[in-house]
This record gives sequence, C-alpha cells and structure tokens, in this order.
Amino acid sequence: MRSREDIAKYLVTETIGEDIFASAAKLYPICRSITGDGVRRTLREIGAHISLHVHEVPTGTAVFDWTIPREWNIRDAYIKDASGQKVVDFAQSNLHVMSYSVPVHEHLSLQELRKHVHTLPEQPELIPYRTSYYSEGWAFCMSHRQLQGLRDGTYEVVIDSSLKDGSLTYGEYLHKGDTEDEFLFSAHVCHPSLANDNCSGVALLAHLAKRLAGVRTRFSYRFLFAPGTIGAITWLARNEDKKGHIKHGLVISMVGDGGGPTYKKSRRGNVMIDRAFAHVLRHSGLTPTILDFSPYGYDERQYCSPGFNLPVGLFQRSQFGTIPQYHTSADDLDFIRPGHLAQSYRLVAEALNVIENDAIYQNTLPKCEPQLGKRGLYGAIGGDKDAAANNMAMLWILNLADGSNSLLDIAERADMPFKTIQSVARLLFQHDLLMTNSANAGMVDDHGR
Amino acid sequence: MRSREDIAKYLVTETIGEDIFASAAKLYPICRSITGDGVRRTLREIGAHISLHVHEVPTGTAVFDWTIPREWNIRDAYIKDASGQKVVDFAQSNLHVMSYSVPVHEHLSLQELRKHVHTLPEQPELIPYRTSYYSEGWAFCMSHRQLQGLRDGTYEVVIDSSLKDGSLTYGEYLHKGDTEDEFLFSAHVCHPSLANDNCSGVALLAHLAKRLAGVRTRFSYRFLFAPGTIGAITWLARNEDKKGHIKHGLVISMVGDGGGPTYKKSRRGNVMIDRAFAHVLRHSGLTPTILDFSPYGYDERQYCSPGFNLPVGLFQRSQFGTIPQYHTSADDLDFIRPGHLAQSYRLVAEALNVIENDAIYQNTLPKCEPQLGKRGLYGAIGGDKDAAANNMAMLWILNLADGSNSLLDIAERADMPFKTIQSVARLLFQHDLLMTNSANAGMVDDHGR
Amino acid sequence: MRSREDIAKYLVTETIGEDIFASAAKLYPICRSITGDGVRRTLREIGAHISLHVHEVPTGTAVFDWTIPREWNIRDAYIKDASGQKVVDFAQSNLHVMSYSVPVHEHLSLQELRKHVHTLPEQPELIPYRTSYYSEGWAFCMSHRQLQGLRDGTYEVVIDSSLKDGSLTYGEYLHKGDTEDEFLFSAHVCHPSLANDNCSGVALLAHLAKRLAGVRTRFSYRFLFAPGTIGAITWLARNEDKKGHIKHGLVISMVGDGGGPTYKKSRRGNVMIDRAFAHVLRHSGLTPTILDFSPYGYDERQYCSPGFNLPVGLFQRSQFGTIPQYHTSADDLDFIRPGHLAQSYRLVAEALNVIENDAIYQNTLPKCEPQLGKRGLYGAIGGDKDAAANNMAMLWILNLADGSNSLLDIAERADMPFKTIQSVARLLFQHDLLMTNSANAGMVDDHGR
Repeated sequence: MRSREDIAKYLVTETIGEDIFASAAKLYPICRSITGDGVRRTLREIGAHISLHVHEVPTGTAVFDWTIPREWNIRDAYIKDASGQKVVDFAQSNLHVMSYSVPVHEHLSLQELRKHVHTLPEQPELIPYRTSYYSEGWAFCMSHRQLQGLRDGTYEVVIDSSLKDGSLTYGEYLHKGDTEDEFLFSAHVCHPSLANDNCSGVALLAHLAKRLAGVRTRFSYRFLFAPGTIGAITWLARNEDKKGHIKHGLVISMVGDGGGPTYKKSRRGNVMIDRAFAHVLRHSGLTPTILDFSPYGYDERQYCSPGFNLPVGLFQRSQFGTIPQYHTSADDLDFIRPGHLAQSYRLVAEALNVIENDAIYQNTLPKCEPQLGKRGLYGAIGGDKDAAANNMAMLWILNLADGSNSLLDIAERADMPFKTIQSVARLLFQHDLLMTNSANAGMVDDHGR
Repeated sequence: MRSREDIAKYLVTETIGEDIFASAAKLYPICRSITGDGVRRTLREIGAHISLHVHEVPTGTAVFDWTIPREWNIRDAYIKDASGQKVVDFAQSNLHVMSYSVPVHEHLSLQELRKHVHTLPEQPELIPYRTSYYSEGWAFCMSHRQLQGLRDGTYEVVIDSSLKDGSLTYGEYLHKGDTEDEFLFSAHVCHPSLANDNCSGVALLAHLAKRLAGVRTRFSYRFLFAPGTIGAITWLARNEDKKGHIKHGLVISMVGDGGGPTYKKSRRGNVMIDRAFAHVLRHSGLTPTILDFSPYGYDERQYCSPGFNLPVGLFQRSQFGTIPQYHTSADDLDFIRPGHLAQSYRLVAEALNVIENDAIYQNTLPKCEPQLGKRGLYGAIGGDKDAAANNMAMLWILNLADGSNSLLDIAERADMPFKTIQSVARLLFQHDLLMTNSANAGMVDDHGR
Repeated sequence: MRSREDIAKYLVTETIGEDIFASAAKLYPICRSITGDGVRRTLREIGAHISLHVHEVPTGTAVFDWTIPREWNIRDAYIKDASGQKVVDFAQSNLHVMSYSVPVHEHLSLQELRKHVHTLPEQPELIPYRTSYYSEGWAFCMSHRQLQGLRDGTYEVVIDSSLKDGSLTYGEYLHKGDTEDEFLFSAHVCHPSLANDNCSGVALLAHLAKRLAGVRTRFSYRFLFAPGTIGAITWLARNEDKKGHIKHGLVISMVGDGGGPTYKKSRRGNVMIDRAFAHVLRHSGLTPTILDFSPYGYDERQYCSPGFNLPVGLFQRSQFGTIPQYHTSADDLDFIRPGHLAQSYRLVAEALNVIENDAIYQNTLPKCEPQLGKRGLYGAIGGDKDAAANNMAMLWILNLADGSNSLLDIAERADMPFKTIQSVARLLFQHDLLMTNSANAGMVDDHGR
C-alpha cells in the first residue's frame, strides 16, 4: 500500500481525465431526481468502481425540520399535436419534464398547455431544467423556439410518472485511514441529464475513491453520493454522532468545464481545507477565485448550518449560476472535457496531499544556518531550474521550523508550493537537519529512514 | 406611542426637509457668538419645538482648564467714509464684525483702518468669518473687492458692542427611553449667519428631537445645543457623572449642502455608532467618505479627549474646510437645500434605527436549514424585485444566528442593508424560527406576537 | 556630552557624505576575503576612527555547525601569453582571482585555461566576483570581451596565494549607553574591491560609531565588522550570552548607490527597529521599499535564525541582486556618491533618534483640551509653514497621550514625522501639559526643566 507522502502523484493517473469523462458519459442519460430509480441506477454505476453502501430511507421519515417525500419515478412523457405527432418527447431529453411532475393524461388547447410550459425566452434554443419537489404539479420544459412553433389546436399531454410512498436513496463509501478523523466528500446525485452539474462531480469522486483505496492515509475519507439538500440533511440527521470526527470536507460540483477554478470557503473561513485549497489554487498557474462563505449554494449550506458548522468548502470550476449553460440542455457532454476533469481532479489530489502531509518539524541546528555545502545540499535536488527554488525552500524551512510553524505555514509565508516545501523538508529530515516535534510526533512519518 | 421597530419610517415625515429648512432660515439672521443674546434667541427658536432646558453659567466659572469668558453683545457697527456714507454696515451682514470685537468709536486713516480689516484676497467677493474670543481686539471683515474700492481719507469706525460679566448659555433636551443609557446629540450654536455651519445642524436636531418624542425608545436621547468648544467643555465639566451613561453620540454640523456624506469615527474607532453610521452610509446609494478619528474638528474633540473618550462621531455632508463656502458669506441660505437636509435627516434616522433595533437572535432549528417552503416563507415578502434579496437575507440570518452574531453583524457579513435584515428577522421570529438569546433577552421586544 | 534628544541633528555633520566616501575610497583597493590580511588592513583603517577591538579566531575552531577555515592570503597573480605578456593581472583588479584560489603555477593551453575562467557573457565588459571558500580550486575572473580576445597558445598561469592554518579576524566596537540593552550594527568586511558592497556600509558605520561617541545614549551600541556568514556565526557562537541584551539591530550593506532605500524587516516583523525604520523611510520624501523578512540576504540570516531570532533588520539602497553592477567590477567608486552616502547615514541617524527618544507620556489635563492659547502654544513653534503641522501635532499628542501610546505610536497614527511629534511633545512637557508615565519613568529625561 502506498504511503501518503506521494499521494498526489499516485492518485493522478495518466488516463484520469478520460476515465472520469467515460463515467460521466454513462451517468449522463439517466433521469435522476431526489428519489427514485434514477438515483439507484446512478449509485449502481458508481458501485462498479467502489463497494458503495446504498441506504434507503422510507417516505415519511422525519429528518430534522424535513420529511422524506414520496418517491418519484417516470417511464415516459410526451406532447402530441392534433395530427398525433410527438412534438415533445421525454425519450429525447429527460429535461422535457419538470422533476416530480404528477401523472397526467389530458387533451388541452395550446393556451391551456402554455400554462404548463417552461422556456427560456432569452436563450431560445435551450431547454430549461425545472423541479417542483414540494408543491404538486406538472409541467413540460422546452426550447422557446419550439414553443413558438406550436400552432393553435388540441394537444395530447402524457406524463407517465408515479409519486408514491417509497424511499430516498443515497450511497456512502468509507476509505479507512490510520485515524477516525474524517474527510467528507459530497456530491449531489439528483440532477437529470446535466453533464457538468453534476455527472462531472459524481464521476470525479467515484474515481478518486477508487484510486484512494491504494493509499494508506492519515485521515479516513467518507464519500457521500446523495440527492441535493434533502439527501445531505438525511445523512446529517442519521449521522449526528460523526460530527466530531469530520475534520475536513469538500462539496464537489461542476468540475468539468474550463472556467474558474472556484473555491468557496467554509463558514468558519480559515480551517485547514480553506487554507489548503486556496494554497493549491494560488499555485496552480490558473486564475482562481476564492470566495468567502455565503449561505447559498450546494450542500455546504447544510454542512455549514450553525448547528453543525462543519469545516466543509465547495469546489467548482465556473461558479454556479454565472454561466449560460447552467441548468439548461446546453450543460451536455460537449460542455465537459477530459482535460478539465483531469485538472480538477489534480487540484483535489494536491489539496489532499497538503491535508495528509502537513506536519510540524523542528530545526535540529537552530543557531545560525547549518552548513549545507558540507552535506552536499546546496543545489542538491532537481535540475538547474529547480535548484534555486529548492535552495530557497531549504532556507525558509530551516528558518521557520521552530516548532510553531507547520509545512503549510511555511509554504504560505514563503509563497512557495506546498509540494516543494514538502519534498525539501523530507530531504532535510533525511539529513537530520529536521526532527519531528515531540508534541506533534503523531503527525509525522519516519520517511523511511 | 410608536415602538422603536419602525423608528426610521416614523421619524422621517414627508415635509421634513422643508421643515428643517424653514427653521434654519429663522436661525440664519441671528448674530450668535459663544455668549450673549444671539445664543439665547437661537435657543428660544429651538424651544418652539421642544421643551428645552436653558442653562446660564456665570462669567468666571472654571470649567476644567478653561474659564467662562465675559459675555459679548453687539447692537450695531459700521464704517463711514469722509462723506458720512456707510461703506460697511453690520445691519447688512453680521459677518462684517469680528466676533468678540471690543467697542470702538474712532476716526482713522485708510492705512490705519486696514490693520483692522480681514478679507479673502483669493475669494474677493466673499466676506470672511473671524473671531477673537480670548485676545482682546476689534476688526471688520469685508470682501476684498470692497476693501480695494475704499479711497484714501478718514473713516469713522463704530462698533457698538459690550464685553461684560454675564454668562454662557446653552440648551439641553432629554428624551427619556426605557434605559438610562444615553445617545448624545450635539450641535454648536455659536456661529452667526452661516447657514450650513451650523443653522442646518441645529435645525435638524430640533426636528429630530421633536419627532422622537413620539417613539418609545430603548435609549435615552440627550440633545445639546451649545457654543463650540467652550460650550461642550462646560457641559462636560458640569456632567462628569453622565460619562458612564453615554453609549453613543453624534456631533452634527453642516448637513444642508449636497456634498459627502462624511462620517468621522470616534477616537475608539469601532464602537456601535461608528459601525452603524458607516453601515448606513455604505448602503445609502451615495458616495460616502468614512474618516478615521483625528483630533481636529468640532466638539467631538472634547467628547473624545482622553479623559472622556466617549463613543461620539461626527456627521457632516461636505467635510469642513474643504469647500470654498466654508466660513464665508457664501455659506448662506442658498447653499443649503431642503432635499439635502431631508437626506441627512434620513441617514441619522436610519442610524438610530440600527442602534435601537440591533439584537442577538438564535436560530431555533440550527441543524441544517429549516424547510422554508412549507412555511410559505420563500419569496414571502415584498414584490418580485425584493424576493431574491429577502430569500438571501433569510439564509444569512438562519446561518449566522448562532447566538454570537447580532443583526448588524449579520448585515455587515451579508453586505445587505440592516433594514432588510431587520425586517426579515422579524418575520422569522414570528414564524418561531428565531428566538431571543436568553443572555440578551433585554435587547429584544416580542414583536407583537 | 550631548543628550540623546538631538541625536539625529548632532550625528549628521555637514561633511558626512564626503567623509564616508573618503573612507570607502581607502577601503576599496584592499583585497579582502573571509580571512587574511585584507580583513586586518580593513580593520586597521576603521581603527583610525574608533578604538576597535580586533579578534583572531584560530583555524579549526568549531562555531556551531561550522569550522573556522584555513586562512587565505594572496600576493600576486597573473596570466601570461606565449609572448610573456601579462594578459590578466591581479595588480590591476583583485576581482581577477577567485577568492580562496589555491596556489598554482602552470602552463596551459587556452582550452585548459578556459575551464578555470569565469566571465559574464551577458555583461561582456565586466569582471565578475567569485569565491570558493569551502571547496578547493582556483580560477580567474575576467571580462567576456577579454576572454574572447585570447588566442590559441600556451598560457602561464600564476596564483601566488597561500591557504594555511591561521585565523579568522573580526573587529568590534562598543559605545556604552545608560543601559546594557544593546543596538547591534553589523557590516560584512569580506568582499574585495566592490565599493558599494560593502566599502560603503563599513565606512558609514565607522563614521557613525565615531560620531556617536559624543552622545550620551539610552542604549549601548555594538558595531561588528566581520566577514559575511562565517564572521557573524563566529560572533554569535562566542557571544550567546549577549542574546538577551540585543533589543535592536541593523545589518548595513550597499548604502552608496542612489537606489531604494530598501528596508527588510526582521524575522519577527514588527519589532521596534522594523517600525522605526519603516516610519523614517515613509517620511523621507524618497520612494522606499519595505520588504518582509526572507531567509536569503546578508548576516540578518544568522541573527534571525530561529535559535536567535534577534530583532535585526537590513538596510540597503538598491536591493542586492537587482542591479547590473552587483558583484561585478562595475561596483566601483564611481558607483557610490557622497550625496547618497550622506542620505543613507541621515536615515540611520533618524532611526536611532526614534529608538533613543520614543517614550510614553501622559496628558496632565486629559479632560477636554487644555486651553493652548493662554499658554501661547498655538502657532508657538517654527515659522508659518510649520505652525499648522505643529498645532496638529499638539492636538494629536494631547489626545493620544493617555499612557498607552508612545511617541512612535502617536506619530504613526497621526501620520506625522516622529521628529515633529518629539519636538512638540518636549514643548508640551515643558509647559506641564505632559508628564512621564510613572511606569515608564526610566524612559524619559527631564528635558532640562
């Protein structure tokens, strides 16, 4: 089993972008909602990679202020015009039906039909994504162009759905680390055919979990694949006892487009994951945006509610709601790219590397600089290009390793990538120039000495 | 009696700008100084609106390092040329005589006269405002143009003033609130015919005090109308016992021009009034300037002296000394506008609203978000335009109402107007989603539940 | 003996720039290294101004992780071409020989010779400065143009040097103040003919030490003239007991060019010298750069190593490594100017003035402002130009002198030069408006009252 020291390198395989894309492509056609067989099929797909524990929570179960709703399933839906031709067909896009639409079979005038149609007049070619989980109704979604093309006449409207007592389904996977302290990953699995939001995030986490199985980690990693809002609430209600164990967390959504990257801080604002992710993004060579916490967004809303206040941030590429593809049929498989997925995955892997390997060391020769030359350490690592950076890293580490600064503290003050500080610290440790801080002994390996 | 919840709305009447302007116009012609009948007439004018307590402090009374000076009064003053024509006449503008000029009746050559004349060569049309309270002398002020027009010859100079033992006069009004904690409002009443500086501030406070009488407030409000410097010093010397009660304070001057608005923080720099006023200004839609404390300015100099260090800020429109009209005859009734006065008054009323209504609430369902939909709270308030803002306000309040954040804390972090947070908090309270923090119970009403 | 109150004025003589330049010019031709007679001659030159204590530390002595190396001396060196003509001559520039080159006398082909030659291809006219203290070898340095001009043939190479057991030499001077608390000045004396780096710094400190002898100071001032790195390490190893006494410190190098000024903060980042020097630079009228600490640079690397963590900053004009003259033959006497040296000296003197005269005073009349007019204090100091600034300084001091703010605190908050605050505070003290804080009585003189 791999040690956590090279976790970032080990996690990132050469084909990771294609692998995530392929999984996202399999998830894309499934019609998901907050309950129902779409979620189950999605979890089965994830379960092909990891041994997922699937939970079913019955309709009517109280979860804090909420109640598990009835289960929704849909088999077919269409609108036929007077000539019997299907003008809108669920089989072509599951976005055509508002999620949680009750069953209907009626004949309506165009005027009547219009009251049950959502379009996007300002994006006339796109089908919007709409839901109505908690107030009964039915509706179709279509492009505005399509609506404008409909002639007066009678239309036959069929939604072959069911809304019955059943259960809410979510999946959970635990990678056990050396401690019971946990890192919580969470992705919503309730959106239908929207590739970026969130086939991308679900697929990324499935592959991360799979690959992580090969690493011996300090932290345990919990992966939660659950419907948005109600799923996270359900999990929290059933796992209040885990609150104290969750030391870090990330909600992952929309990680396949080329925007951002965007990190939204946890409510606490300066916990380890906030610092680690911001650090990784700042040294990514990309043009990241770091946002303060706000109570609108994905399931960090629940994790960061005041009664939990968990250290959970949100990672995205483009920020939700800011791009024209958001919640429309344009969020399709063309919108996400293997390269972007690989990049997003790599950023997560680098953040994990920081979380796993941050530690406090102490300079064994703190009075003046040690003589690096006699140990062959000047310019010792890497090629010419890296030598100067590595020398600076040595000086920074030796100067700041006074028992009060962790490697991340040092990387931040030196404004150098954590991985450089980490690898140089390992070298200094091997040369007995660093020792583990006895008070923090548990945080540090012996680096194979 | 009105509850403090709607204090801002209640205080601001439709005609408030015109009402303040009318009062300022009545105050404008009076020749005020730091003592004398001009101050008494001014206080009588204010007393038409509120039952003002007028204090007379005898000449010679020691007030800290200072002594109440002799009382100055003036009846007439002029300069006549050789032909007996009045070339300068106090009856036309009381700025023509330097305040505290001793009586004089002499015949002088132009050369001799010039030694007793102040002008503004760079603003040749304007009469400057000059005083000499603590060193005996006399002088005329006139426009530079006028001085240049004077021909050689003998001039008859008359100042019919008196400088005798008497008293210093100031006025005080107290609006009693539910507690003895006080908000101190202070305006200087020592400048002669300068409309903005400070007929505007005096009139604004008179109308605020009058209107405030109709509201049941948490704090008691003390209004002080006193001559600058010596008046504030006198009040502080006679009211040292009130020091502990003053929780907030504002000096008001120059509030009728269209500049600023400008708020100068108290010496402490982050007390409630500093935060409240800065918050109100930032959400005013205007282009405010927030200044750090400095020891030059108006009577906040005394209130914020180190032996008192009271939480008192300064509110102005344009900053003193930065505009060409400052301390000249151009600071006349044309320079102040009812619209600007109303705007200034509204800003003060909104700051009072913050001070009166800030409170700490606690989310009654802190674990995950409560289900707002089933309570009809999503989009519940206001029209479409406000719905999104109100929804965000709900999420912010529920997220931050953990017993450590007051409504102002929440408004600041959400970067939303206090009044939005306040009204949405009231709604959540009525729906039992907020409760008062027992430790802060005294700070919160029952909102009529 | 002068009192410390006017230390800045007293230290800066009219001819200081020329005096420092003349000393630097005497130091310039000497071939220095980290050991040897060049250092001794340099210290003798400094000793002409102050009674320097010269220390000799034998080869082989352990100093922390280091060992005093063998002593290096050089008498002559040259390269002769086949015709017997000297094409490179140590007598013309001591930069021609890499420092610590072992003795050599060989005949080499041009190809062989090239392996022992350093040039700067991108600055083809300049001779680089190179050293090899800790790995044995020999080399010549020359301009790239000169190397390109050498024809094929046999060259006679002579380096008449010696590398033998001996000692490392450094000089130390102590100006005793009223307390044993010390200010440490340090300049490296190991570079050969480089005028700015560091004849300028050495000469500046020699003249500062000389002049300081005439002042009675609060702090003791220690001046250390030692070879870079190994010299500072040696001093620290032999003076660990002084660690607790060093309250302030400055490394001085490259102070004769017209760049900067640049101040690099101590590792602690906000100690008195950091605040004082930054304050002086901000009010210098120049365009200073204030850098955070980094572990690369001059001997502040050793003073600020974690085992010492002394409050020592670095003062330079241009920042090392950022200018084309750095470590080349272009760093000659033309590169440094008396005017720049005088300016650098003045900045140091002003920082000393802050360090020596900062003190906490208390307003004796803290309730409201005292009446300055009756004491003749308004506009009392200086001409018209300074009157307004001095009045503001009076108000700031009286307002902030509550026993918690020192003069530097007040200068920073008022954003006024320390020397203005200092002189106005003295005036207020003489008028009994300030008293010394009993808890800080030792910090304040009686100002000759």
